[in-house]
Amino acid sequence: MALDVLENLGITTDFNLKVVIDTEEELSSPHLPQAVIDNREELASDMLLIFDGPPHRSGGPTLSFGARGIAEITLKTFGPKVAQHSGHYGNYAPNPAFHMSHILASMKSPDGRVTIPGFYKGIEISPKAQAILDAVPNNEAEMRKQMGFSIPDAVADSLEASIQYPSLNIRGLSSAWVGTQSRTIIPPDATAEIDIRLVKESDPVYLIGLINDHIEALGYAIIDHEPTDAERMEQKRYVQMNYSISYPAFRTDFDSLAGNFAKSALAHLNGSAPIMLRTMGGSIPISPFVDTLDIPALSVPTVNPDNNQHSPNENIRVGNFIDGIATIAAVLAEKVD
Amino acid sequence: MALDVLENLGITTDFNLKVVIDTEEELSSPHLPQAVIDNREELASDMLLIFDGPPHRSGGPTLSFGARGIAEITLKTFGPKVAQHSGHYGNYAPNPAFHMSHILASMKSPDGRVTIPGFYKGIEISPKAQAILDAVPNNEAEMRKQMGFSIPDAVADSLEASIQYPSLNIRGLSSAWVGTQSRTIIPPDATAEIDIRLVKESDPVYLIGLINDHIEALGYAIIDHEPTDAERMEQKRYVQMNYSISYPAFRTDFDSLAGNFAKSALAHLNGSAPIMLRTMGGSIPISPFVDTLDIPALSVPTVNPDNNQHSPNENIRVGNFIDGIATIAAVLAEKVD
Repeated sequence: MALDVLENLGITTDFNLKVVIDTEEELSSPHLPQAVIDNREELASDMLLIFDGPPHRSGGPTLSFGARGIAEITLKTFGPKVAQHSGHYGNYAPNPAFHMSHILASMKSPDGRVTIPGFYKGIEISPKAQAILDAVPNNEAEMRKQMGFSIPDAVADSLEASIQYPSLNIRGLSSAWVGTQSRTIIPPDATAEIDIRLVKESDPVYLIGLINDHIEALGYAIIDHEPTDAERMEQKRYVQMNYSISYPAFRTDFDSLAGNFAKSALAHLNGSAPIMLRTMGGSIPISPFVDTLDIPALSVPTVNPDNNQHSPNENIRVGNFIDGIATIAAVLAEKVD
Repeated sequence: MALDVLENLGITTDFNLKVVIDTEEELSSPHLPQAVIDNREELASDMLLIFDGPPHRSGGPTLSFGARGIAEITLKTFGPKVAQHSGHYGNYAPNPAFHMSHILASMKSPDGRVTIPGFYKGIEISPKAQAILDAVPNNEAEMRKQMGFSIPDAVADSLEASIQYPSLNIRGLSSAWVGTQSRTIIPPDATAEIDIRLVKESDPVYLIGLINDHIEALGYAIIDHEPTDAERMEQKRYVQMNYSISYPAFRTDFDSLAGNFAKSALAHLNGSAPIMLRTMGGSIPISPFVDTLDIPALSVPTVNPDNNQHSPNENIRVGNFIDGIATIAAVLAEKVD
């Protein structure tokens, strides 16, 4: 629609345009990295602009110069093969939900910092980077009130600083039943779904290795499958660990060609400089482009910040859909210096 | 059917018989204690025999001289009011699943012993009691193989000894979604369903108080409801704790009138003494009778031991249904010395 607008106005772009639409982004883009490698000649370009991701929480015009990458881990612990009566065998049959609790609790302090040595390795916030973070107009008190909590995790002293670090998040946890479905049993297993948000300094293979070694150091044997009957008799406590690395992080310099171009475009449209984020906390599959094509990339968000991404009632405000067309048209109409 | 058998054989009982059928037993018998109090005159008797509960795992004729009682606790921890994107707010919005893991992990050692001081208070296994436990013909290696684990919890050195202690069991655990339902979010809450099996020495009010105090000592504020918007802003981490005490444990002396009567009946039927259990691990609502009517009680199980109680595919073997009629008829035909 932005291209239609430009055509109707008789405006031509100052550059050639290549459009990539990834229909698998919400599935973690499983085929994108290989597609970029296979089509590197056709995709060769000077910069990559991504019209995805959230704007700053204020809803104001935003540029994101980076995004965290993402890896996922599934952990599973094991009790009796089938659920056992919690009276007859309670104190005897091992409880996989307690084992999972021990494993998870050992990875983070109660105030939210990962306690596995090395997890935050290599991350330094320079004075220049700190100034960039400080320039973001956050109202954290209001933000926390809207989200309904008063004590944030203690990874860093602000939201913007917090997302400069990799995160270790339990996104789901399950063992047997709760609520009206509860039964007085010792569950047969417990499952934790974990996501790790990666920053540019994070090597996902290294971080997953740290977690693997940490769980082994607790005394568990790590396997990649449910234990067989024979394995169950081997005097070991098992943790099934499966993982995938979707894609690493990327981060583009503020004064790159792409940065200056997009800043100028948004200033032309809005009459003032956009809010500029060193990285956004979420993940978009950009590092395959950055790494394979060796080009700067940044994200120009167009959606509303309260769109419940990845949650029930995910939405887009109609006004943001319309303003998004204007934003994209303004960027496409921008001249390259 | 046992009474029909006796009538057909022309056998009369040596005593008056009062029959109580509790149709709410699987609901934790919410109305039974009051019903016993309200009808104490009509229920007055010399002993109580319960034809419920599991036999010894071997399936051999069994008498249980006690049962553990039961109390239930539901714990809930809170993150953001609604799920938040784990990228945008991971490292900032508190994760209720990690908080729940810390709380649960702090209550028990990895090898299954409750670490809250006082939880096992007052329990002593005398040499006489130990001899009773040792006489139970358990094959624990075979039992563990059937259940599919090799390292039992370390509360005591045998199954029979383990169930002489109260247990603290996570019967269910849930936060957001796992498996194909997983979403990259910080969950809004996490729920743990806990059951405590009580022994005769356990005061359930005292044990629940210990757990309450333990959670508070970890730095959480305990409330009995979901935190309101205003409470969420009070710089506290909340745990919603709700509990119910279904009924305490009971334990009858081996050489009580009831014990000698039932032992003799089963020996007459089977030609040998039954397996005798100091307590069974499960819970049956007998303490209201024992406490209100001041009578000895014991349980004469009739079902198969592999009946998947409280689990999917709960069942009764037809042979046990038929043998159960014989067992009950033999007890009713027994003479009182």
